[in-house]
Amino acid sequence: MSFTLYDASAPIFIASLRDMSAWLDKAAAEKSEAELLEARLAPDMRPLPSQFQFASDTAKNCMARLAGVEALSMPDTETTFAELKDRLARTVAYVESFDPAVIAASEERPIALRFPNGTGFDFSGRAYLTGFALPNFFFHVTTAYALLRAGGVSLGKPDYLQHLGMPNFTA
Amino acid sequence: MSFTLYDASAPIFIASLRDMSAWLDKAAAEKSEAELLEARLAPDMRPLPSQFQFASDTAKNCMARLAGVEALSMPDTETTFAELKDRLARTVAYVESFDPAVIAASEERPIALRFPNGTGFDFSGRAYLTGFALPNFFFHVTTAYALLRAGGVSLGKPDYLQHLGMPNFTA
Repeated sequence: MSFTLYDASAPIFIASLRDMSAWLDKAAAEKSEAELLEARLAPDMRPLPSQFQFASDTAKNCMARLAGVEALSMPDTETTFAELKDRLARTVAYVESFDPAVIAASEERPIALRFPNGTGFDFSGRAYLTGFALPNFFFHVTTAYALLRAGGVSLGKPDYLQHLGMPNFTA
Repeated sequence: MSFTLYDASAPIFIASLRDMSAWLDKAAAEKSEAELLEARLAPDMRPLPSQFQFASDTAKNCMARLAGVEALSMPDTETTFAELKDRLARTVAYVESFDPAVIAASEERPIALRFPNGTGFDFSGRAYLTGFALPNFFFHVTTAYALLRAGGVSLGKPDYLQHLGMPNFTA
């Protein structure tokens, strides 16, 4: 089966959103939830919950834009690990709800990304996914990881790549 | 033209490797190079140069594995911003050297990823790119950004997405 925009979007989003949920389990077992929720890498950078919310937004909005439908709204009201885990689970379910054939057919669909300041980018579906959605998604996934790691949670690359499962090769 | 593994690899790597080079220019103009080169997010995490080297490794090794050739060796000897910028430029040139048709044909190529401890993963080309190479690449790109940002360099999302250029829409 030939590679499509679906293969380069939904499975990638789902894998990392599930990884992120497991990081919160580890964080809850090891450190103060209240302190981690306030963690930032720089004073003017968004704290931990925003990184989860933006990863969710990027994934769900990407799927909706590629499909040409209005994205499901998920207000950024989460203030606990449990609520963030629920947000991740709802995002996974939403991403899973899209028809692979519809996404595969979105390569040339015009995508209008608009910012609050009135500017924005007009993309094709493929340029939107590779130039914006994937880099932006992993920006927030990795920043969430970095905040937990800097906050003392014992995360490592196997947690970041937990979706790969156990190594399937042993010498 | 239909979407291929080339579209989901080389242009993405090249865009972010060039973005990273520009971050170093900003860092050099604003902060102490010696201090930033030692920056880490956690005591047992690799410092700044490693993040640039691992991003380079992931990009060049991904292209080589998909093409079925041995990757160009780039020893991790860089100790200055100028040397890291040269590493990024050499990586971009190497990624650019691959034939898009060869990479596009690598969907089912068996890829053997081996770790120093003797374990590893056996992938198809498509599973290797989406499950390992893209997430791992952006992990190191974003960690490099996070280290510079935490070190006081005035980076923002426009620097992370500098490859998009100026907004092409204005209200």
